[in-house]
Amino acid sequence: MYVTLKDGIHDPQGKAVKDALSVLGFNGVEQVRVGKYFELDIAETSLETAGPLVNGMCDQLLANTVIEKYRYELIEK
Amino acid sequence: MYVTLKDGIHDPQGKAVKDALSVLGFNGVEQVRVGKYFELDIAETSLETAGPLVNGMCDQLLANTVIEKYRYELIEK
Repeated sequence: MYVTLKDGIHDPQGKAVKDALSVLGFNGVEQVRVGKYFELDIAETSLETAGPLVNGMCDQLLANTVIEKYRYELIEK
Repeated sequence: MYVTLKDGIHDPQGKAVKDALSVLGFNGVEQVRVGKYFELDIAETSLETAGPLVNGMCDQLLANTVIEKYRYELIEK
């Protein structure tokens, strides 16, 4: 799952990364947005039930839904 | 781009997330790996030249290649 700041929310970490890249000579970077990335192994038998489960995890713990949005991909193993 | 710890490298942050999810009642989670996620807007005209550029950024700044690996997707806008 990917947790990123909502559009329009100021991202000082991204700005810092952009500036650091600029110092290193990477000048073509127009914008950087930094987010969090989680890989979870879940003992869930079906993709149908895994979706609501992951939504619950994001809403309750992994994302601050006031300022952050999230999306996820489910991969069956 | 996605920066994650290499396989075999201990991920205490992921362990903490797993434990926190367990406290919240999400018991089916077997493993959590936490990583970083960057969205960059790059003023680069071709996907061919953007690839090496992004590799350079990851190697020099965004990833600690001793313990982290990275992958990325290039999307033309």
